[in-house]
Amino acid sequence: MLYIVGFGPGSYEQMTVEADRALQESDLIIGYTTYVDIIRPWFPGKEFLVTPMKQEKERCRIAIEEEKKGKKVSLVCSGDSGIYGMASLVYELAEQEEGFAERIHVIAGVTAAASGGALLGAPLSHDFLTVSLSDLLTPMEVIQNRIRSGAESDTVLCIYNPSSRKRGDYLRMACDIVLEKRSGQTVCGYVQNIGREGEKAVVTTLEELRDTQVDMFTTVFIGNSHTRNIHGKMVTPRGYRLETEKERA
Amino acid sequence: MLYIVGFGPGSYEQMTVEADRALQESDLIIGYTTYVDIIRPWFPGKEFLVTPMKQEKERCRIAIEEEKKGKKVSLVCSGDSGIYGMASLVYELAEQEEGFAERIHVIAGVTAAASGGALLGAPLSHDFLTVSLSDLLTPMEVIQNRIRSGAESDTVLCIYNPSSRKRGDYLRMACDIVLEKRSGQTVCGYVQNIGREGEKAVVTTLEELRDTQVDMFTTVFIGNSHTRNIHGKMVTPRGYRLETEKERA
Ligand SMILES: C[S@@+](CC[C@H](N)C(=O)[O-])C[C@H]1O[C@@H](n2cnc3c(N)ncnc32)[C@H](O)[C@@H]1O
Ligand SMILES: C[S@@+](CC[C@H](N)C(=O)[O-])C[C@H]1O[C@@H](n2cnc3c(N)ncnc32)[C@H](O)[C@@H]1O
Repeated sequence: MLYIVGFGPGSYEQMTVEADRALQESDLIIGYTTYVDIIRPWFPGKEFLVTPMKQEKERCRIAIEEEKKGKKVSLVCSGDSGIYGMASLVYELAEQEEGFAERIHVIAGVTAAASGGALLGAPLSHDFLTVSLSDLLTPMEVIQNRIRSGAESDTVLCIYNPSSRKRGDYLRMACDIVLEKRSGQTVCGYVQNIGREGEKAVVTTLEELRDTQVDMFTTVFIGNSHTRNIHGKMVTPRGYRLETEKERA
Repeated sequence: MLYIVGFGPGSYEQMTVEADRALQESDLIIGYTTYVDIIRPWFPGKEFLVTPMKQEKERCRIAIEEEKKGKKVSLVCSGDSGIYGMASLVYELAEQEEGFAERIHVIAGVTAAASGGALLGAPLSHDFLTVSLSDLLTPMEVIQNRIRSGAESDTVLCIYNPSSRKRGDYLRMACDIVLEKRSGQTVCGYVQNIGREGEKAVVTTLEELRDTQVDMFTTVFIGNSHTRNIHGKMVTPRGYRLETEKERA
């Protein structure tokens, strides 16, 4: 059995019971260095295999090969194992392996949109677009076009991979696209190192966000036209016909 | 303290350790009947308070009042507590209560997009738009406009609240909008009763989805132009510059 396990944002408490059990039962846990460093203390005595950051395909291949030797293997991802995670790559790489798909078991986790949203307040109570600013595998026009479509339809944006050493100014570019359609006072937020050391949540405005430097361990939220700052929390009402306003009127 | 707890899709195993602890520690757990029926067996001896489906504002108000009596109260939501959940309504209703925001603690959970995605394969490995078809609080034009923008920008769609007794044909309407831009052969999927009795995941095509009747306990996934059916699983590659194809070539 090959488990692809999302262990949540970073603390043991934010992992599901199911993820915990799958990892406990595994003969071998495979992951990127940073992630294995996080979870290793939770599973003393377990066998771990660490691969560097860019070698994701290699990591998946090793997982498939080790499983074929009859081991219970877990491949770990932060957050959810599907959302910008490794599950799709495993299915693609195992495509030629007879009967393998049945031995893959994807275990969902709390994705950064949800865990980051909880720290900010409630930014995702209405429709949202999840977009990654990484252009490693996706042409920049596709990404920009998506941001524009989200901006035009007044959708909350939840931005993953907002930055890297090479893409320090991508968040500014994204904000500029949204600013064509939405006020600079739009309520925004960002969350760094969720569930990890240095956890930090900031509620701000779109024009301030534009001039903010964030790192790769950050998830960014851009509100819709109804999103509010309530006592320092980022809160998107559940609809446009406001439940509380209706009543107050 | 008022915890707003997402307990995941429906099985105990899919709840986080943190949600479990918050519920264990609570003096009172408040929720909609169906949800309390699910979690009651996990917390024997706990005090529960049940309110009917539509009375969400009432439910939040009771939670706020009970907390003010000095109780530890948990308000439960399925999936994540922020994503189409109750957290925003609590912040809005507590706005006038001095110092209350600090006593609200939102506990994230595994949302249906993630848990449903895991059952289907890996549909959300690339950017996606989460949209609710409920027009109770949102004008239908806003919803349609969002679906159109997602369709135009080739974004994966994840549809919550696809149906209700009054809105039996809304999913067909949504599919028709996407069909203006995307092939009828687009890989789609839907998942019913995730983590609950009657759990069912189906991978299909957009043209078949259009003619499918789903109920309110269903989450629907519409793939992008690169989403594939791999051995019966719905798999969206992590980008457009395909990792595996590049290599095979
Ligand atoms: C390759 S994606 C992985 C997403 C992950 N599978 C999930 O569901 O959260 C990496 C991006 O996720 C977000 N992210 C993941 N974990 C995070 C955390 N603990 N704190 C803040 N952002 C995080 C950041 O935007 C980061 O650049
Ligand atoms: C009001 S929304 C609540 C969403 C929830 N807060 C979450 O994060 O999953 C209700 C919708 O969520 C989806 N949903 C929630 N739980 C589900 C489950 N166990 N199985 C399938 N869909 C579910 C369905 O689309 C349903 O109509």
